Amino acid sequence: MSFEPEALQAFVQRYLDTVAGGSADDIAALYTEDATLEDPVGGGEVHIGRQAIAGFYKGAASVELETELLTFRAGGHEAAFMFALTVSGAMRIEPIEVMTFDADGQITSMKAYWGEQNVTQL
Amino acid sequence: MSFEPEALQAFVQRYLDTVAGGSADDIAALYTEDATLEDPVGGGEVHIGRQAIAGFYKGAASVELETELLTFRAGGHEAAFMFALTVSGAMRIEPIEVMTFDADGQITSMKAYWGEQNVTQL
Repeated sequence: MSFEPEALQAFVQRYLDTVAGGSADDIAALYTEDATLEDPVGGGEVHIGRQAIAGFYKGAASVELETELLTFRAGGHEAAFMFALTVSGAMRIEPIEVMTFDADGQITSMKAYWGEQNVTQL
Repeated sequence: MSFEPEALQAFVQRYLDTVAGGSADDIAALYTEDATLEDPVGGGEVHIGRQAIAGFYKGAASVELETELLTFRAGGHEAAFMFALTVSGAMRIEPIEVMTFDADGQITSMKAYWGEQNVTQL
């Protein structure tokens, strides 16, 4: 299974747009039922399944989020990308994320690499 | 198992320095015996084991390589980073790579995300 880079980038852009403008359930709907999410990588917690993933994003529902794709790389049915996440106009985080997708373009796994050294107070 | 970001970045820098200045066997020695390597991701081939990995890097032994770390993210015992690879001063590739490390700092897996759209002729 393999996608054109443009298709993978469209999946990622849809995800970033939904993180910025959608509800936790909207974001979780982009994931498969049995997807996994680790954010941040090494944080000790892997969220398994769409319900757990919706719970993870609910924490972000009360703040204003902006997203901007900075760098994008495609590979087969996977994508690696860096983006900027601005939280309530007060904080900017620049993670590198890696995602895998199923044949329908739903996210089967997401891993976010970032730490406090990638957070800037605005 | 978890490393400080500085330790992970040092492992990655050692890898990039060895790619630029070492032999295929030098690079392969940074990997564990049973490590896996996929470069590019989606290319259809996963190299398994240090001998196969040395074979992969032998193809690069006849060209002059320069490497420069551009962006680095740490997470637990993993690292995600973007770097520039300059080949014989004629071509520049900017992959995003993801690596996992064992407790001794040896590479247990490497995945390189890039495609022809990330290659620039100089």
